[in-house]
Amino acid sequence: MEVVLFLPLDFLFAGLSAGIKKNKKKDLGLIYSKRLCKVAGVFTRNRIKAAPVEITKQRIKKGTAQAVVVNSGNANACTGEKGKKDALLITRQVAQELKIKESLVLTASTGIIGKFLPCGKIVAKIPALTKSLHQENFEDFCQSILTTDTRIKQSSIRFKIGGKTVALAGAVKGAGMIAPSLATFLGFLLTDLAISPPLLQKALGMAVEESFNSITIDGEMSTNDTVLLLANGAAGNKKICQEDKDYFKFLSFLKKICLNLAYQIVQDGEGATKFVTVKVKSAPSLKAAQKIAFSVANSLLVKTALFGENPNWGRIISAVGQVNVPLHLNQIDIYFGQKKVVENGLAYSSPAQEMKKKEIKITIDLKMGSAEKTVYTSDLSPEYIRINAEYN
Amino acid sequence: MEVVLFLPLDFLFAGLSAGIKKNKKKDLGLIYSKRLCKVAGVFTRNRIKAAPVEITKQRIKKGTAQAVVVNSGNANACTGEKGKKDALLITRQVAQELKIKESLVLTASTGIIGKFLPCGKIVAKIPALTKSLHQENFEDFCQSILTTDTRIKQSSIRFKIGGKTVALAGAVKGAGMIAPSLATFLGFLLTDLAISPPLLQKALGMAVEESFNSITIDGEMSTNDTVLLLANGAAGNKKICQEDKDYFKFLSFLKKICLNLAYQIVQDGEGATKFVTVKVKSAPSLKAAQKIAFSVANSLLVKTALFGENPNWGRIISAVGQVNVPLHLNQIDIYFGQKKVVENGLAYSSPAQEMKKKEIKITIDLKMGSAEKTVYTSDLSPEYIRINAEYN
Repeated sequence: MEVVLFLPLDFLFAGLSAGIKKNKKKDLGLIYSKRLCKVAGVFTRNRIKAAPVEITKQRIKKGTAQAVVVNSGNANACTGEKGKKDALLITRQVAQELKIKESLVLTASTGIIGKFLPCGKIVAKIPALTKSLHQENFEDFCQSILTTDTRIKQSSIRFKIGGKTVALAGAVKGAGMIAPSLATFLGFLLTDLAISPPLLQKALGMAVEESFNSITIDGEMSTNDTVLLLANGAAGNKKICQEDKDYFKFLSFLKKICLNLAYQIVQDGEGATKFVTVKVKSAPSLKAAQKIAFSVANSLLVKTALFGENPNWGRIISAVGQVNVPLHLNQIDIYFGQKKVVENGLAYSSPAQEMKKKEIKITIDLKMGSAEKTVYTSDLSPEYIRINAEYN
Repeated sequence: MEVVLFLPLDFLFAGLSAGIKKNKKKDLGLIYSKRLCKVAGVFTRNRIKAAPVEITKQRIKKGTAQAVVVNSGNANACTGEKGKKDALLITRQVAQELKIKESLVLTASTGIIGKFLPCGKIVAKIPALTKSLHQENFEDFCQSILTTDTRIKQSSIRFKIGGKTVALAGAVKGAGMIAPSLATFLGFLLTDLAISPPLLQKALGMAVEESFNSITIDGEMSTNDTVLLLANGAAGNKKICQEDKDYFKFLSFLKKICLNLAYQIVQDGEGATKFVTVKVKSAPSLKAAQKIAFSVANSLLVKTALFGENPNWGRIISAVGQVNVPLHLNQIDIYFGQKKVVENGLAYSSPAQEMKKKEIKITIDLKMGSAEKTVYTSDLSPEYIRINAEYN
């Protein structure tokens, strides 16, 4: 199946190998917009932030940017002052080659923590990187940001805003360390829409909450998580400056793309064999629903049971009960797919057949209120351990 | 190596197979004291509590007990009113056979959640169980409480209080689902000391906090966790009624036994190949130290790296930073054993040799205050997943 790409106007891409990874795979990527972009970003809440996160977080404060340089294979985290200097040197070199202001170049890194970037190798490749910028190199860029991912993750869509055609495209890397409040997760969203920075930031925050912040592979939150949304206005629409119908139209497509990318991350979770949706409904509050949904989705016992196609709903109930939320056990219903397996806290029917499916939806009905939360996760297989025992 | 057992006076034990487990292993156990005991208990904080937990929690409120009947192979959790009736029927039968008041019989269960107890089988075996009560059957009892444990876990000690010889013995079951706030963990501590119930409860609470509540295998907290401490006064010491030197002497031995049993649980953690100590020192508060220690000890990425003997300290730093505690990254030191691997947040030396050891001690020095916390855990191996994918 060929995937049709809808790339926004005036964005160029590049991706090549700078020798950061030992296996000669692509590890250095660049996004460049011919026009100045409005920019929004969401970053890791880990107290330990990598050097590129600190720099990019600072630079997007003024709301504009024009390029993003990304490397994989090394996180440039826990690298102190030298790490910061290295990241600044790289953005400075990119700015010089592109002939733009250094402050308009953003940066992100992913890979091993605590080692210095091979800065010489990277700087040496920057001229070749900028020279290879082209709209058709989007896939090269997508490849250059991967670590233990087994495939590229991209999604795009085209829609009309005020009679103008707008494109929105996204590329992410996921794999391990995927958890709420982001993950070793890098996400880059690009659009040619014209929109004000505050609305861009608001839309990104909402879309991230329902997508990237609603997935979990292993409960980890990395030092490097970054999602950036750049909008260069090349579509020529009347600039969106308030929460009107155009804004909500854009928001709905942004959510769609983010959710699609989030699905792809879970489907490619390290060692994943199942795609699992956990929905908590009729909760007393959104916070309660979130806590319970993530407690179930992060439970090693639930995840290993799912890998074993073992209909052990007791582990789900136990994960529900671990959360500090008052519950009425004798009201809880649990469904696997459409099949009710627990009614009012007691066994109701066996979901053995449901367990064999590749996609499993667990619904937990608390019958206490009207709040609900859906999160997405994978099972836990021995392959996850193999990958993470060996990763350097 | 033969283990010398110091069993307290006037306690009798029994353990046999009632056919709850499919493999004919022992699954029904009984502790009986010839004298009325003072009793203390600590229970799961899971919101979903098994029937036996509800009953025992209620019964120990008056501070006395004389017998404990335990089954493995079935947790009698999420079994509603029938579950409660089943548990009550079992304690009633035990009381009748022992000719004691029903309210003096406590109970605990461990095993699969959501299935009704095979109550007929159990009741039929109670006469044989009570008839086989004997001081020398302590090991039978220890076996009868196991689930996926690969070996029995017991510890005992003898010491003098006011010129009298006092014995303290404990038996636990652990294996999986081991986490702070207990685990699918059952623990039974028995002593012939004379002590008042409030002091017994206070001592148990303190000993549990530093031992069973400081271990974690997989971050799970079960519906059935129970630890009971029975003291029958047969040693003939002057009853301890205040926090005097006798109390503190007993407390120190109680802590020692509990810590020894906690070690045994971690060493027999499902699939464990390493015994890992995580110490957080110079933290701004005890709460901060606890949060950070458990964040590191529960991190799948840290645990898989330990399994792989991979000195990936970046994952430790990342787990530290996931906790919502203000940190100074550029002050943090990390040691593997005596070897400093991170100094002031930066790589210092490689701990490759330390990683090959069977016991690994990770020390995280925050240099922020004077609080500290030590927790104990294991690595995470593919064997953990195999066990938990198949467990029914």
